[in-house]
Formats: sequence, structure tokens, C-alpha cells
Amino acid sequence: VSTTQQAVRPTDPTGGRPVVPSTGVLRPLGLSEIALTGGFWSCRQRTNAQATLAHCQMWMERLGWVANFDRVADATTRPDRPGLVFSDSEIYKLLEAMAWEFGRTGDLRVDAAFRALSERVVRAQDADGYLNTSFGHGGQAPRYCDLAGGHELYCAGHLLQAAVARLRTYGVDELVEAARRSADHVCDTFGAGGIASVCGHPEIELGLVELGRALGEQRYVDQALLFVDRRGHGTLGDHAFGREYYQDDVPVRDADAWRGHAVRALYLSAAAVDVAVERKDQVLLEAIARQWANTVARRTYLTGGMGSHHQDEGFGRDWVLPADRAYCETCAGVGSVMVSWRLFLATGDVRYADLIERTFFNIVATSVREDGRAFFYANTLHQRVPGPAVTDDEVSPRASSSMRAPWFDVSCCPTNLARTMATWHTYAAAIDRTGLSICQYAAATVRTTLQDGREIGLDIQTNYPRSGLVTVHITRPTPGPWTLRLRIPEWAEGAVVQDGGQRTLAHPGFFQLERAFAVGDQITLDLPMAPRFTNPSPHVDAVRGCVAVERGPEVLCLESVDLPAGVSLDEIRIDTSIPPSEHHGRVLVAGRRVEVREDAWPYSSGDEWSADSQQVVDLPLTPYHAWADRGPSRMRVWLPTV
Amino acid sequence: VSTTQQAVRPTDPTGGRPVVPSTGVLRPLGLSEIALTGGFWSCRQRTNAQATLAHCQMWMERLGWVANFDRVADATTRPDRPGLVFSDSEIYKLLEAMAWEFGRTGDLRVDAAFRALSERVVRAQDADGYLNTSFGHGGQAPRYCDLAGGHELYCAGHLLQAAVARLRTYGVDELVEAARRSADHVCDTFGAGGIASVCGHPEIELGLVELGRALGEQRYVDQALLFVDRRGHGTLGDHAFGREYYQDDVPVRDADAWRGHAVRALYLSAAAVDVAVERKDQVLLEAIARQWANTVARRTYLTGGMGSHHQDEGFGRDWVLPADRAYCETCAGVGSVMVSWRLFLATGDVRYADLIERTFFNIVATSVREDGRAFFYANTLHQRVPGPAVTDDEVSPRASSSMRAPWFDVSCCPTNLARTMATWHTYAAAIDRTGLSICQYAAATVRTTLQDGREIGLDIQTNYPRSGLVTVHITRPTPGPWTLRLRIPEWAEGAVVQDGGQRTLAHPGFFQLERAFAVGDQITLDLPMAPRFTNPSPHVDAVRGCVAVERGPEVLCLESVDLPAGVSLDEIRIDTSIPPSEHHGRVLVAGRRVEVREDAWPYSSGDEWSADSQQVVDLPLTPYHAWADRGPSRMRVWLPTV
Repeated sequence: VSTTQQAVRPTDPTGGRPVVPSTGVLRPLGLSEIALTGGFWSCRQRTNAQATLAHCQMWMERLGWVANFDRVADATTRPDRPGLVFSDSEIYKLLEAMAWEFGRTGDLRVDAAFRALSERVVRAQDADGYLNTSFGHGGQAPRYCDLAGGHELYCAGHLLQAAVARLRTYGVDELVEAARRSADHVCDTFGAGGIASVCGHPEIELGLVELGRALGEQRYVDQALLFVDRRGHGTLGDHAFGREYYQDDVPVRDADAWRGHAVRALYLSAAAVDVAVERKDQVLLEAIARQWANTVARRTYLTGGMGSHHQDEGFGRDWVLPADRAYCETCAGVGSVMVSWRLFLATGDVRYADLIERTFFNIVATSVREDGRAFFYANTLHQRVPGPAVTDDEVSPRASSSMRAPWFDVSCCPTNLARTMATWHTYAAAIDRTGLSICQYAAATVRTTLQDGREIGLDIQTNYPRSGLVTVHITRPTPGPWTLRLRIPEWAEGAVVQDGGQRTLAHPGFFQLERAFAVGDQITLDLPMAPRFTNPSPHVDAVRGCVAVERGPEVLCLESVDLPAGVSLDEIRIDTSIPPSEHHGRVLVAGRRVEVREDAWPYSSGDEWSADSQQVVDLPLTPYHAWADRGPSRMRVWLPTV
Repeated sequence: VSTTQQAVRPTDPTGGRPVVPSTGVLRPLGLSEIALTGGFWSCRQRTNAQATLAHCQMWMERLGWVANFDRVADATTRPDRPGLVFSDSEIYKLLEAMAWEFGRTGDLRVDAAFRALSERVVRAQDADGYLNTSFGHGGQAPRYCDLAGGHELYCAGHLLQAAVARLRTYGVDELVEAARRSADHVCDTFGAGGIASVCGHPEIELGLVELGRALGEQRYVDQALLFVDRRGHGTLGDHAFGREYYQDDVPVRDADAWRGHAVRALYLSAAAVDVAVERKDQVLLEAIARQWANTVARRTYLTGGMGSHHQDEGFGRDWVLPADRAYCETCAGVGSVMVSWRLFLATGDVRYADLIERTFFNIVATSVREDGRAFFYANTLHQRVPGPAVTDDEVSPRASSSMRAPWFDVSCCPTNLARTMATWHTYAAAIDRTGLSICQYAAATVRTTLQDGREIGLDIQTNYPRSGLVTVHITRPTPGPWTLRLRIPEWAEGAVVQDGGQRTLAHPGFFQLERAFAVGDQITLDLPMAPRFTNPSPHVDAVRGCVAVERGPEVLCLESVDLPAGVSLDEIRIDTSIPPSEHHGRVLVAGRRVEVREDAWPYSSGDEWSADSQQVVDLPLTPYHAWADRGPSRMRVWLPTV
């Protein structure tokens, strides 16, 4: 039985933060401590609010996933329940997104939508706190009969995360109370003396820790630790893709890299960091940091994408990174940001913020269509055949990667994007006792309090990533010196910081300005945005002999729609002796067309496969996040060189 | 109801042939018209007889797959029937292998094993001819309730193929009669006016045509044509991997390349050729020839392996040919041989025999372990991590590719190999009205009759592929001139034929000797067996910048067990300026070790990833078919060049 029953509304003076670790180097900003004022992410965040939330709800109503809750409440559940076994979680992720969005803007229409939807959810809760529309009602299989595949605790975890968002942006309401009952039920059922197992899909751990933090319920944190430490001992039994599929092969503390199903691995790791910082468990924290490092070094795409296999949506072995069968599930990108953010808050290590930026621009921004109403589930780096156009009125198979689709049979990604976009600005900066670290560049205003209690305020102006110029104006008087840290991305060798009359070369990492600041002080950061060639390590077999082009945080690509008539994407070879250039806002690379012989047998003792043209053509590249915006297309991130 | 009820024993004076097209350029040899007398394939054929047949039976008894038939006969079938839904087909493929093996050697123990096993099968047949242990008995789902996934007609097709083998090597027996009842039942149920659909896995078509040919039942051939033409119209409905998974996306006549599940595509195509030659349907024949040509040019591995995807065991798009995630299912190799053989018999085109050789040496011979008791299900071209040793007492997941395994959860490959190996010698040559074409080189004796009735006899001596020397002795007097054709493989530029005192340069294709031959005449073929470098087409993105080494028909590979201590397979670069050599029977290539930097992030603006050593080392290669013979190992077919 819980002890903290009194409502606090709103609970969080910062306006609400998705992750609130009680120890660690940095404290994240809340929804009302920072606001985007324009540019790349502001535009996407607005689209998320104006289009994506309603789009997700419309599809889930249309497919009967929301009505599943009504049927449980009305005892009219039938065996032919629509939706896959985990569809409840999509409603929870949408509720979470709505709660953050209400916290961000105070839009009462969003609040009303949240109330109406959460009311239907809460009605479906059983008396003992169990809440799930796929098991235990109307002739369905009994509760917890299929922990490996049933996703019951996974769904509960998302309910808890939705409740955390509501609690921190509004206060205790019916959904929060339902989540508390659900968490109590989980602890009662799976705690010491209960079912000694875990869910096939990690997520409950994340929900339990954060709800535990938000409500001050240590029991929930302890239960999360129990789940984290139970995993890796074969409790779930064999799986066709191996026990690594659900990380039940090796204990979390002992593993050296992420493996198996990517989203599972990442959710589990995010929760493990949460537990580690709550319990000051340095061994656990270091285990996840080690897994992050090895995975980033050997199992991650240039885009930040994770998960190389279609078959199991999983990580491959080291260096298995095919461009054309890249899976790079959008949710794995979201999961990667979740882990990196938690590690960043715990350690302050800039590498985590670097990967977050890469993943934001090249997975998160890639997945969602400009209008916020269609999504990539998988994010390939090489589209060989332009797929058919997808209509806005059909459910797509999840891994079709030729065009963004409005909805999927397995539709975890749209709502995951929705909750991420609603909170995007909270990833842009973090504070500590004596300073503020700007992690992601976007036009924004910040007004927050250092951990020593002093208020600071600043205004960030930039058109990043179109431009690399970022200007920070101090907008509030703050007594005494404090530290402003500017993240210099790993690719930004040659960045310059101008503070007053002083220009300083700033190397990758955090550039620190430690002084007293006065209102009106201006600090300018100039990041080098010239497009650059990027070469893969020879370990990455799949793209040997190829080059990619990046510009700032954006990975670029070549689309067939930009080629001269009659030239095929496969015939292009890049001349890397000519640096990429920019012209009218587009990046150009110099390429030649080669004619590749097509034989009856594509292997030969001779080596005269292609006749190189001497004619150099300028090839206009597109940011990867904007590919397929102009209809079905062939696309390559990695381009063969001359 | 069938009209041909009288028994003929044995039916086929040639000793039995797996495929007997009634039209076409060539006639295949029967089991008693050719015999292997030693060497590579003779050894494997003997091992198949002595070990593999009993091994398969032992596993199927042990797992209860054979007893499933007893339980149906005894009406004791229970819902927890062991084995997957298609396990009956494994018993049928084993029966087929046993029948051919009995035909080949007359070994009465094999005949006894066949009788005992087939008796148990026949007892399980329902009164109306339906025979299946997964549906329709003891609380199981009803017959034909799941045509897309149930494999009922697939199983029936294998029953029919087993019966054909028995009919041609022995005569009519109970199994043949059971197959006839089964075929009649299929025609009654799925013929005009019946269920207007097809089976999710093609195979019934193959069984129907061949049984139709063997029994002179045109109705069976017509039903096969009906099935072939029904496919491609969406009858089976959607599939998670697309309708192409079971070739129900495009009619057989309209398709341009193989796609979807590789074994399905290949079985269907083999049957389509059978139907085409029976019905003199040139459009259908040309459709399959076109699909063969496009698939071989763009969707086939150097090994002849087909099927690039693990997820759906399917073909990829053009040029999707990753080495490290190559699927190349063994059964797809068998299926490829089946299609090529039928196209070869129909057209006489040497390209089909070329691909058969490549597939025999590099898929079929690779899959089975030297002792005939363990198998690769998938045949990767790049093993990144040596897997755990597989014990001879456990069932493996099918796609584990690190070691050959004794049995699989889905165990289609062992019995498919068994029936192929038992008939291997029948692929070695074919005859027409005035001559004999030697297609595959092996020490063998041939005694057969030309289509004009003249007898010919010859003795082939060779240690191929160890040596490229093949000597043909004429052993029977044959009146008048006839034509001896020797296949010069596509890789064998520079081959020399010596006939009496005359030496002639023979180019790839069929080399013809048209003359009268006397007993004792000797013709010698000298094939160039020097190892050679093979370069991939630039279209094959996955192996850009790499080279393979081949020697005769064998693809070679480099295994980590052959590297100097402390050198990793990933550090090897081949110096292609130094031709491969042979030393003490092993092929050596010159390589250098490079030290590849391992960074936190495997992509970089700089290009100084590796430091090239100047020290050249000789690297001993292994025939790909022998890889993993010395325990778990890393392995590469495609080796990066300096």
C-alpha cells in the first residue's frame, strides 16, 4: 500500500521534466525553463502539437485500440480484440505526449483530450490494479501466462510513464492514481515472493523508477532494480532469435555491448542508468557506459541508427552495418536518446550529447514527415528500389522503407516520436551547481535556477543547422560568476567563440566561459558548417570504398530524383579530390558517371567492370532527414568513390 | 479415379531417373546407366548411403515425427503433436532418398528400411486419400483451413515424389498406390470446381507432374498446370513479408526474376519447367529461363547460393548480396539445381550445367559434414564470430551458421541433401539422339543408349577437382559416328582437348567430338586448375574492394585457424599483384597485415584508418566446402585488397 496519497498540483516547479535523477552531475531543465523560439526543432515541435497528436489518436480510435479499454470496462471484450497485444502502450505513449504538450504550452484543448482519453483508460482497470486489454477478460488468455511475449508489464510501464508526465505537469489525477495502483499491483505480483520473472520487453523498469522518483516511492525503484538484476539468467526461456533477443542471455552488469532486439536493449539500459543513479550503484552505471561505448564504436550507423537486422529488429555482431538492409528502427533512435541523456546527466560526458544530436537530426527528424502525419518505422541508408507511394489512408507493414506511412501494423514509432518531440527542448541544456551547459543548438529562451539557487536567463539566437552561428544574450542579472558551457560537437574542429572582443578557438568538447555575466552580454559561437567527406572505418565491410557527406550535424544523401535524366544512382562515383561545396543552400559533390557492365554472372577474373567517364557532374545532395520528401526515390548515404 | 492400375516392376529400364521430361533437347541418365567409381562425389555419395540416411531416420524417430503417422493410424493423435506442421515431408524426402539409393545399389537393407517406413506412412492415410498428420485428426484444425501456412499440399507433393522414386526403381507398391490416392484426392479437391487456391509452399506441382509422367496420368499434369497458373493472383492473401513471399504477387508467366522465399520460388519454377515441357508451353518455359537469367545475374552469390535475407529466407532486391548475412539456404541450393537441370534438359544450354556445378561444389558439398551426420542450413560467406561448438546430440536453430549441426528445428535440408546425393551421378551426363554430353566431371562408368537406339559405353577417369585432367575411354563398340560433348566450364578458358594425337584449345561451352569411336579410344580433357582471383561487379555493394579466390569449380575461403597467432582475420589485406599459388595441395595468396585503428566512432573525416604493414605473408586458403571442418572459426570468402 502506498503512503504518499496527497495531491500536489503541479508537482514540479520547473514545469516538469521527463527524467529527474536524484544524483548525477547535471540536472535537466523543465518544460517551462526553456522555450524554443524558432527554427528547425521549433517548427517540428509545433507540427507535433498541431498534427501528430491528433493523427495518432485518430488512427487508434479508427482501429479500435482505444475502444479496447471501453470493452474491458463494459465487460464486452471478445476474443477478436483488435490490435496487437501491446496496443495499449500506444495509448499510454500518446497520453504521455499530451501531458508533456499541455505542460509545455498550457493548451487547454490538449488537456481536455488527455482527460477524455485517460478517463476511458482508467475505467478499464481491474479492482486489484491490473490494467490490460489483451489478457484476463472476456475469454482471453489469463494474466501473465506469456511473460516472454505478452507485453503486459511493458504496457504497464508506459502507463506509469504517462502518469509521471501528468503528475509533473499537472498533479495527481485519476490516471496518476491508476498508475499507482498498477505499480503497487506489479510490486505485489513480481516482488520478493511473487513471480520471479521479468517481461519479454523491458519498459516497466523505466516506469517504476520514474514514478518512484515522482511519488517518492522507494518500493517502485527497488522493484525496478529487482527486474534489472533478474534479467540475463534465462528466466524467459529460449527464443527463436536467441535469449539475447530480450537480453536474457547475460546479466546487465556483465554485458559488454548491446545485443538482441535494439529497442528492448535500449529501454533496459535507460532504466538501468536510472536505477544506478538512484542507488548510487557505480558498477551498474559503468556497465551501461561500457555497453554504450562498445556499441557506438562498432554497432552504430553514421546516422546514429541502431539495429542492423530486419529479422529480429536487433543489433548485429560487431561491424554488421549493411546500408541497404539497415533497420535503424525509429524507436531505437528514441531509446538511444533516452540512454544517452541519462548517461549525460549522470556523468556530464559530452560524447553522450554528441550522439543525441546525431540521432535527433538523422533518426528522429528523418522518421517524421514534414506534416507530422507519416513516419518511417525503419530508416535505411540505401534505398535500392523506389517503393510504391503510400496513401494516407492505409496501414503499412512496419519495415517498408521506401516512403513514410501514416500508420503501421506495429505502430510504436509515431507515439514514441510524439512524446519525444513534445519534450525536445528539455534536451537542449542542463544545469549544475554553478553553470549551464548548452547541449543542443536551437533558438530558445532559457530562464532557470542554478543548483546554488541563483537565477540565470539567456536568449539563444541561431538558425542552426542552416547556419553555424549561435548567439547567446544574457537576459537576467545573476550575482557573481557562473559557468556557461557550449558544446562543441565532435565534428566541429575549428569552432570559434567570441566573448566581447576576444575570439577563441574552441575544440570539440565543452567550451567553458566562467565569469560574471551582465545583462546584454553577448557570446557568439561560430561552428564550421562546411560540408565534409566522411570515411568509414575499414571494419565496416558493407561500405568499403564509399564516402558519405555530412554538414554540421546532418548526414546528407543522394537521391535519384536529383540525377540528370538517364543517369542511374548506381552509376555515380564521387571524386573526393574535389571538396564538397554549397550553392544556393544545397550541398554539391563532384561525381562522375561510370558505365558498369552487366554480365550474366556478376563475378569475373577480369577487373574491367566499369568504364569511367571523364565528365564531372555536380550532384546536389539532400539532408538525409528530408529524403523521400519528393516522392518515391532511390537513395544512398554511402556513395562509391572514383 | 485413375485408369492405370496395373503394376510394372521395375518401370524404368534405365534404373530410374528423378526427372523424365517427355520433350526437350536432352534425356537424363538413369541410376543404372552411370556409376561413380571414385573421387569427390563418389565418396560423398557413399557417406550419404552409409551415414546420412540412417542419421535422418534416427532423428525423426527420436523426435516423434515418424510416430505421428502411427498415432494417426491408431487414432491417438493429440493436440501436442511433435514436430512442425511440415514434418511429414521430411519422412517423404527420406523415403525418396532411400528409394533412389536402393535403385542405385540394390542394397536390400535400404529396401527393407524403405518398406518398414513406408508401411507406417501408408497406414495413416484416410479413406479418401488425404494423408497428413498435422490436420484433421484428434482435435487438430480441419483440413485445408490454412492453405497459406499449413503445408498440406507441400507434404503431399513430397509423398508423390517419394512414390515416383519407388515406382521407377522398384515398381508399384503400397506407397505408390497411396500416392495415387493422394494425387486423386488433390485433383478432386483442388481441380475445376474445387477449392480454387494453391498451397503457400509450392511442391505439390512437382510431385503431380512427375507422378503424372511416371503413371501416364495426364490429369495430374493438368492439375499441376492449374496450380502453376493460379499462383500470382493474390489467392493466398497478404503476408507479413509481402505476397512475393509465396510468389502470389505476380503470375509465373509475367515475373522477371525470382523473389520472395527462395525455396518456394525455386520449387515452383522447377515445376513450371516440368509443366512447360509436358504441354509444349514455350511462353512458360521462356518465363522461367528469363527469371533464371536475371536472378543469376543479380541475385546470386559467388557460391551459387540464393536467398539473401534471414528474415524471410528470401531473395533480396537486385544486388542485395551481403556476405556476412548471406542466407543461402541449403535447400535453395538443391532447388536451384532442380530448376537448372530441368532447363538444361529442355534447352541443352551449357549455362545451366555451369551453375549446377558451382552449386554442387559450393552449397551442396558445403552443407554436409564429411561424416554425413551434420549440416549447414544457411551457408554464410563471412563468419564474423566463431560460434560455440555444436554437439551431435542437440537440435539447433536453423540459421546458426557457425558450425554444421546434426538436426534443426526446421530440418528440411538434411533429407533434401540425402535425396540429392543419392542421385548425384544422374546429373553428370545426358544424352540426345546422336550423342552424350558430359556435364559434371567425376570418375565414372557410363553405359547407355542413344535416342536412336545405339549403345555407347565409356569410362571416365579423373581426380577432379583435385586435378583438372579428365580421361575418357571408349568401352563399347558403337556403329557409326556419334557425338561426345565435353562441358568446358565458364571459368576454364584455356582448356585443351586431346583426341588421339590432336590437341585442340577448347573454349567454355560444349566441346564437340563428332566421329566414330572405337573401343580403347582415349580422349583427354585438361582443364586449367590454377587458382584465380575473382572480382565482384561494382553492383555488388557489399563486397566492394574485395577479391575472392577460386580454383576450378571451388570457391575458396580464408579461415582464422590458418592465420599466424595474434593476427585477426579483419586485419588481412590481399595483394592481388601477386597471383595465387599452390603449395603442397593448398592454395596460397599473398597478404599483408594492416593495423586498423579502432576509434570511439567508426566514421571520420580523415582517411588514415589503417597502417599498412610492408610484410607480406602467405595465407593458406581452404575450399569453402571444407570450412569449419576444424572447429569454430572466423571465415571470409571475400577478402579486402591492399
